[in-house]
Amino acid sequence: MPHSNQIFLLSEHRNTYKTLLAEKNLPDLCLTDQPEAAQIVLADPPLLSQSLDEFSQLEWVQSTFAGVNALTSPSLRQDYTLTNVRGIFGPLIAEYVLGYSIAHYRHFARYHQQQQNKQWQPHLYTSLKSKTMVILGTGSIGGYLGNAAKAMGIKTIGINRTGIPTPGGEFHQTFHINELSKAFEQADIVVNTLPSTPETRQLLNRQTLSQLNQALLFNVGRGDVLDEAGLLFALKNRWVEHAFLDVFEQEPLSVEHPFWKLPQVTITPHIAALSFPEQVIEIFADNYLRWRDGFSLNYQVDFEKGY
Amino acid sequence: MPHSNQIFLLSEHRNTYKTLLAEKNLPDLCLTDQPEAAQIVLADPPLLSQSLDEFSQLEWVQSTFAGVNALTSPSLRQDYTLTNVRGIFGPLIAEYVLGYSIAHYRHFARYHQQQQNKQWQPHLYTSLKSKTMVILGTGSIGGYLGNAAKAMGIKTIGINRTGIPTPGGEFHQTFHINELSKAFEQADIVVNTLPSTPETRQLLNRQTLSQLNQALLFNVGRGDVLDEAGLLFALKNRWVEHAFLDVFEQEPLSVEHPFWKLPQVTITPHIAALSFPEQVIEIFADNYLRWRDGFSLNYQVDFEKGY
Repeated sequence: MPHSNQIFLLSEHRNTYKTLLAEKNLPDLCLTDQPEAAQIVLADPPLLSQSLDEFSQLEWVQSTFAGVNALTSPSLRQDYTLTNVRGIFGPLIAEYVLGYSIAHYRHFARYHQQQQNKQWQPHLYTSLKSKTMVILGTGSIGGYLGNAAKAMGIKTIGINRTGIPTPGGEFHQTFHINELSKAFEQADIVVNTLPSTPETRQLLNRQTLSQLNQALLFNVGRGDVLDEAGLLFALKNRWVEHAFLDVFEQEPLSVEHPFWKLPQVTITPHIAALSFPEQVIEIFADNYLRWRDGFSLNYQVDFEKGY
Repeated sequence: MPHSNQIFLLSEHRNTYKTLLAEKNLPDLCLTDQPEAAQIVLADPPLLSQSLDEFSQLEWVQSTFAGVNALTSPSLRQDYTLTNVRGIFGPLIAEYVLGYSIAHYRHFARYHQQQQNKQWQPHLYTSLKSKTMVILGTGSIGGYLGNAAKAMGIKTIGINRTGIPTPGGEFHQTFHINELSKAFEQADIVVNTLPSTPETRQLLNRQTLSQLNQALLFNVGRGDVLDEAGLLFALKNRWVEHAFLDVFEQEPLSVEHPFWKLPQVTITPHIAALSFPEQVIEIFADNYLRWRDGFSLNYQVDFEKGY
């Protein structure tokens, strides 16, 4: 019998992953129930962070999420290769952002209410066309969104850590993150796709949000990039007209939280971009063959940078 | 004093048009209040159809709407040039169709309800990506929609009277209208953008709709292209999962109409694409200069075809 690699599954969707992995029939790979036997772990980061030290032979963790900050805290071990999933969220995020933007500007909720009352009453509206969208993060998610927004006639501005335009041309303009206020002055819609890092934490706060004027604000990146108290102040001053929040400092959002009750806030339970297990397994299978053959893995996370 | 051309305004938004027209300051053009003095009429078709015979010197009517079937009935005079507005509705229709499609597949109404109950509960969903959209009509509206849908990863099928692909490449496939059922078998989303003509009336009926399987159906063309009784039957059989209706046989929709109460029907009051007066005046001004100088007009309607 050939030497076999052992994988441990640690996910809310463990059974789905088990089935999909069996269907893939990857060479020299066996499932194990014993943490100390596994060289490989396929895991939801929040679950793994609680038991990381049990994996004494750990070499590689494939995260089922894009967001890995549960694993990049300096207090946790970093003596293994961590990969996450990328490239599959762009279309889902673009749907979320464009769908909710259209629903807002085109009064979907109002017409739904009118239908309940059998009321035929048109309302004026503005088009997405010629609006300006500022997208924080010009990676695969921000780029896909920029491209889809352009197809709707939106002017797109990308924000990143270099100020260098992307080769794909998804943005009409690109600004360095230090020039955020210059971009925010022009913004009709702001979309945060940034991961949580020491530099991005609380980046959207009372001071930066004060540059906005009745903008729509989307947070589909990480909860702690947005200062929640700052947002409440921005809503009160109408710097932000409506906030669409899919991620929060604490998830699930506490039932005590003031956001639930605000008509200017739309809350979704971290679904802007789900990791569909079918797509995660494709990424894992590709990476597994690379790992087995000694090649470098796709989508490696830099523990220092946090993404 | 030079010879002056007289224009009569007949629109629900008469005052807006009066202001916009004055701002344009078009050469040799005067506003008149006397129908018999006007060579030119800028009009909402339903209003003009009631007083068409009063315009004894009529040469040209610029419609403020895309839909001109109120003026193309064979019982009405056709001894003038009729132009309508085109090319300005594509972005608005694309927003309507993509916005409501996303809202449907991504459970916006459900999350709104959950927020009222402070409930954090994700639901599985499918992406627009890799869905198939069948678009009836491959003109400027259908083409713009096709292009925007492609940017969201949707497979697009165009239906027209020739089966000939458009030069713009907005459709992955193009079918002749006689092959409707071949297209419908593949459809996740069907969008009617067709005008009302003898050939399109009741085109979407019990028989044609029976080719669908849990599709979303949009009518943003003309009300009478859809057989309303046929749709009720299609909804009951789940050939159509949800219908988004912006146009109706009778508008406003009667409060007695069964559509109002159906959860599988979304009703909007003919707002999928409004004629913004600012855009209509641009088209009119351009056409006026052509008319004055003896050139042929843009967007002429063929009374025979009805569009």
